[in-house]
Amino acid sequence: MMRTGGLITCILFFFLYLSGASAMRPVMKKRREPCKRLELFFHDIVYNGKNAENATSTIVAAPEGANRTILAGQNHFGNVVVFDDPITLDNNLHSTPVGRAQGMYIYDRKDTFCSWLGFTFALNSTEHQGTLSFIGADPLLNKTRDISVVGGTGDFSLAKGIATIMTDAYEGEVYFRLHVDIKLYECW
Amino acid sequence: MMRTGGLITCILFFFLYLSGASAMRPVMKKRREPCKRLELFFHDIVYNGKNAENATSTIVAAPEGANRTILAGQNHFGNVVVFDDPITLDNNLHSTPVGRAQGMYIYDRKDTFCSWLGFTFALNSTEHQGTLSFIGADPLLNKTRDISVVGGTGDFSLAKGIATIMTDAYEGEVYFRLHVDIKLYECW
Amino acid sequence: MMRTGGLITCILFFFLYLSGASAMRPVMKKRREPCKRLELFFHDIVYNGKNAENATSTIVAAPEGANRTILAGQNHFGNVVVFDDPITLDNNLHSTPVGRAQGMYIYDRKDTFCSWLGFTFALNSTEHQGTLSFIGADPLLNKTRDISVVGGTGDFSLAKGIATIMTDAYEGEVYFRLHVDIKLYECW
Repeated sequence: MMRTGGLITCILFFFLYLSGASAMRPVMKKRREPCKRLELFFHDIVYNGKNAENATSTIVAAPEGANRTILAGQNHFGNVVVFDDPITLDNNLHSTPVGRAQGMYIYDRKDTFCSWLGFTFALNSTEHQGTLSFIGADPLLNKTRDISVVGGTGDFSLAKGIATIMTDAYEGEVYFRLHVDIKLYECW
Repeated sequence: MMRTGGLITCILFFFLYLSGASAMRPVMKKRREPCKRLELFFHDIVYNGKNAENATSTIVAAPEGANRTILAGQNHFGNVVVFDDPITLDNNLHSTPVGRAQGMYIYDRKDTFCSWLGFTFALNSTEHQGTLSFIGADPLLNKTRDISVVGGTGDFSLAKGIATIMTDAYEGEVYFRLHVDIKLYECW
Repeated sequence: MMRTGGLITCILFFFLYLSGASAMRPVMKKRREPCKRLELFFHDIVYNGKNAENATSTIVAAPEGANRTILAGQNHFGNVVVFDDPITLDNNLHSTPVGRAQGMYIYDRKDTFCSWLGFTFALNSTEHQGTLSFIGADPLLNKTRDISVVGGTGDFSLAKGIATIMTDAYEGEVYFRLHVDIKLYECW
């Protein structure tokens, strides 16, 4: 009888063990909460032929027939813009930058304002040292647009995530301020 | 004797537990089967100076001396093309699009037809809402070419995978139809 | 008494089990050692109007007013260069290539030499068959620069990692030799 008692208890643990084992399969689970989150602003001042001193971006390519001082017609389709924009913690262009947003955007649609983005945040502040790289489509007229965080270095080594971009302000076709809400889901 | 029986049983479980523990180390295993798979077509109509109405892509950059209406010599080395192509479920250009392929390709070799691709699929159908971003080399003369899925948003949040590209049809240097077999290996 | 003995032993295992379970949560751990490492060199010979035979890269875009034969002023800000460079195992340009580095770089700063890189290594040797894709900011004057490995195919399927770039040699503004130390942290 004693023996049976011990056996029953152990068999119980055996099933507990089995159910535990299946729950512990090394499958990556959906994690809904970001492991790191950053909210930043960057400021793009497009060169228009007159603002060489302040400009942080410049049109470098355009379809045949278009020039590179004024954004092209048809929703700027075909314009390639290279930028090196200051990143700030708040929405003030004159705040001390915490890094630079470097890369390019391409106006890639004829029927609406839309661009394709490829760029890197190089952060260099007391809080963050490292880079985050982004790729994605940016349908500018939408209130929020999600792009992909495809990699990172330094403090953001091997980062992966989603960045939500919002146009925070713009002046004509010269100044654009972007608000970026970066959510990382893999933190090493 | 009874006691020994209970102990032996439990010791047995102890070893089972240990072996289980080592098998359950949280190491990501090779997963050979995609967790999501999509087969799509996209249609690229290159602007040639005469087809402004239909064109979905345009040459925006070329080496010094080349113009941007005709693809350059030397296997188009140095041409940068921006596109906004319809994506369809079948190989018919006139099928209802399920999204747009947006981005660019660069002819990057002098000795053969080869391009470097950076683009995003923005899918917007009843079945899929979200984006997938791609990067890779595209040696056009190979029957199949593998490029990387480097990120995604919406239904494809944090996607990672491989896309196999096949040239499904082409007409001169104006129309290219690409068949894309997308295999995702990380699905959140 | 016997029964109690069995129970105590088993209860002991129950706690062992619980503590084990929490240690085995399927959370990806920081892995400090790369699972794959490659050291490679690539060789960039920029077209300057006279070296068409040897050149492996060409300026394809520049701001308005700049031409595409000579790198632009202001630290080449706005120049887009397309390349197809041989990759070698050592620092000798004339060694048998093990693949091609294909993609582009963009000079993206006015105040210093800095570029944004998007490119793919297409490796084709007895040792490695496959591609690795890279994105990142390249502050050229730093001794070492980290960029992101954002994807891979073939032998490098779904690769993720960090590549450290070092300028190994340069001659004027025509020849650049880059040493790349690639560390992959996800190997499938």
